[in-house]
Amino acid sequence: MALIVQKYGGSSVANVERIKNVALNISKAYSKGNKLVIVVSAAGDTTDELISLSKKVNPKPSNREMDMLLATGEQVSIALLAMALEAIEIPVISFTGLQVGIITDNVHTKARIKEIKTNRMEEELEKNKVIIVAGFQGKTNEDEITTLGRGGSDTTAVALAAALKADLCEIYTDVEGVFTADPRLVKTASKLNAISYDEMLELASLGAKVLHPRSVELAKLYKVPLCVRSSFVNKEGTIVVENELMEKELVVTGLAHDLNVAKIGLFDVPDQPGVASNLFNALARANINVDMIVQSAMRNNINDIAFTIPKDDLDKALEIVKKAGQEIGTSDIVFADDVAKVSIVGAGMISSPGVAAKMFAILAQQKINLEMISTSEIKVSCIIKITDVNNALNALHDGFELDKIIVKSDDQCLA
Amino acid sequence: MALIVQKYGGSSVANVERIKNVALNISKAYSKGNKLVIVVSAAGDTTDELISLSKKVNPKPSNREMDMLLATGEQVSIALLAMALEAIEIPVISFTGLQVGIITDNVHTKARIKEIKTNRMEEELEKNKVIIVAGFQGKTNEDEITTLGRGGSDTTAVALAAALKADLCEIYTDVEGVFTADPRLVKTASKLNAISYDEMLELASLGAKVLHPRSVELAKLYKVPLCVRSSFVNKEGTIVVENELMEKELVVTGLAHDLNVAKIGLFDVPDQPGVASNLFNALARANINVDMIVQSAMRNNINDIAFTIPKDDLDKALEIVKKAGQEIGTSDIVFADDVAKVSIVGAGMISSPGVAAKMFAILAQQKINLEMISTSEIKVSCIIKITDVNNALNALHDGFELDKIIVKSDDQCLA
Repeated sequence: MALIVQKYGGSSVANVERIKNVALNISKAYSKGNKLVIVVSAAGDTTDELISLSKKVNPKPSNREMDMLLATGEQVSIALLAMALEAIEIPVISFTGLQVGIITDNVHTKARIKEIKTNRMEEELEKNKVIIVAGFQGKTNEDEITTLGRGGSDTTAVALAAALKADLCEIYTDVEGVFTADPRLVKTASKLNAISYDEMLELASLGAKVLHPRSVELAKLYKVPLCVRSSFVNKEGTIVVENELMEKELVVTGLAHDLNVAKIGLFDVPDQPGVASNLFNALARANINVDMIVQSAMRNNINDIAFTIPKDDLDKALEIVKKAGQEIGTSDIVFADDVAKVSIVGAGMISSPGVAAKMFAILAQQKINLEMISTSEIKVSCIIKITDVNNALNALHDGFELDKIIVKSDDQCLA
Repeated sequence: MALIVQKYGGSSVANVERIKNVALNISKAYSKGNKLVIVVSAAGDTTDELISLSKKVNPKPSNREMDMLLATGEQVSIALLAMALEAIEIPVISFTGLQVGIITDNVHTKARIKEIKTNRMEEELEKNKVIIVAGFQGKTNEDEITTLGRGGSDTTAVALAAALKADLCEIYTDVEGVFTADPRLVKTASKLNAISYDEMLELASLGAKVLHPRSVELAKLYKVPLCVRSSFVNKEGTIVVENELMEKELVVTGLAHDLNVAKIGLFDVPDQPGVASNLFNALARANINVDMIVQSAMRNNINDIAFTIPKDDLDKALEIVKKAGQEIGTSDIVFADDVAKVSIVGAGMISSPGVAAKMFAILAQQKINLEMISTSEIKVSCIIKITDVNNALNALHDGFELDKIIVKSDDQCLA
């Protein structure tokens, strides 16, 4: 018997049949005597449909009213899933984020969780009820409805697991777990049965869509054992834990790629204190997430600066950069949106010199040009042409022998 | 300058264009300096669609989860309407029933309002904001989401007007006001510009769909001036007030008809104390609303009992009546669902004998058979064959000269 938080994404509850399947899946865990808290997203494309409807009414609605609108998506899901559980006679109660007491700050559409009240859930768990909680949403102390932004439902699940001190947080999704690379692009990609928080965080941040980095960060912080598995097939998933017992020789655990990248470069930026800071502050104020930043070696007190941003933000960013460029007095601004980021990730890199060099060699062999490079202790990322991504991933997967990966852990995410 | 509560029904916010029109209508009242609280229903068929979706998941969902599901319909409407007002730069804030503090009992799907907290609304009215409130919904003291059942949004509007001591409650709908008869059936039907609460209550109870009797009752209790008008054309509507200054000779104000009627008859019911009470208690426990009850004169300690119920409840009612009939020992049970109720309503009837007789004569002239009759101080209702309704309404409208009606009131519901 354990306290388990399960999270089902939008594709898992996209239609009536799937909702019934989720209910059956929950009933299996319930019949084993587990206490269950279920987090559920809005069905399928509901959120996108609501956003597109709102744009017809007002191209620039306030974030507060957008939250009011979007929060209905998950509310429909929790009610329907609760009804599906009632139909198979599992005692159940559903709660919106507001009702259950997920307290956030007041930054509408991008709220962060400050606190979770657990008394209402604990009361209902005592009565052996399955609790269904709307993902992605919360409320401020003034009862304003907020949404958590991207990765919101994963974050809700991990936050609930942390607050309730759950034994496990299971993320049910449309893939079978965490793979060494995207299996749609790399045929030999294999599923990892365990991965560390740090590696998962890098993979997620670098574009692996399976988990949102925010939720992994939270899981790491509160040491919530996280399990990623399929809601469609009953197979062992991937467990994300503090210390997975990896074989020592395993240097690279997985590959990630991100197609939502654009690159901006400024030439001949005067090397004066505050210049870069002013530029990046202006981008931050516009809520543009700058990822890689590369500053070339100074020559004659003049720098070249290049950085990457999400492709969707390119127009907005260029506006800001052009204005800042004029003030600074740069000679030229260039940009590209036909680029992508390819990364290798592995905790073993820390103690294995030469991993980056090996990556560059593999890519060079494929005649792939590296436009930018960025490294951390456990990852190396390269910006390359978007048309080279497929080729790069397969070459790296082969080169680092990821098809032969074996990861073992004491913890497991069994079917 | 006044404090006005406006209510817009589902057809008024059924699509983006209509939502924008409603926003324009609100902006007109706002620009005159009025303080505004807007109550809005779920768009078009949203509620029916959600119910049908839920039935696919669970044919008999709990009322609690049904409320959780249905409450999303109005929440979508308030967010979209708020966005439409933002688009034309009217300061606005939307609230769900839970947020604004519409406190109800805990009878899910049929909750009754116990209390309305006005502090949050008053705060925002002070800031000159238009307040949008989700109709049809409230919350219990335990923050459970409830819905108010049929006529819910009208009831929300009137209750808010009462709690806020509003100067006027305007009900915007898809008809231009209250008519002397249904204009789709009676070509000469004319719009009343004023009507008393009591008459409106009878008309609404007897099948006129324009206002729900529950909201009229509440308006009468708290003396809320109620105005019914079209959200599609800018015309004078009908005002419902305590004492409209009617011309004295006006005996009948309007006709109502109800096609949602079924009739059940029990023959040879022993005339013992408690027999009728047991039967009708059983029907009440099944939430079946019994309307007209006729008990024939006793002969040899045996009665015939006939009564009407909503047509939708016929199957459920027959089950109960057959069971009760066996216990009581009736000789036979008959029923009919091809009947309808036609009624005349008018406050002048109290002091005008012979109105009922005149009604019967008019119907007799048309060779319309009266299956049941029921009277109150200000109305006479007859059950007739459903195929005779059109004929009956036109004959009564002519006979009581309702095409010549002139009603005047000090209060008016001007365009």
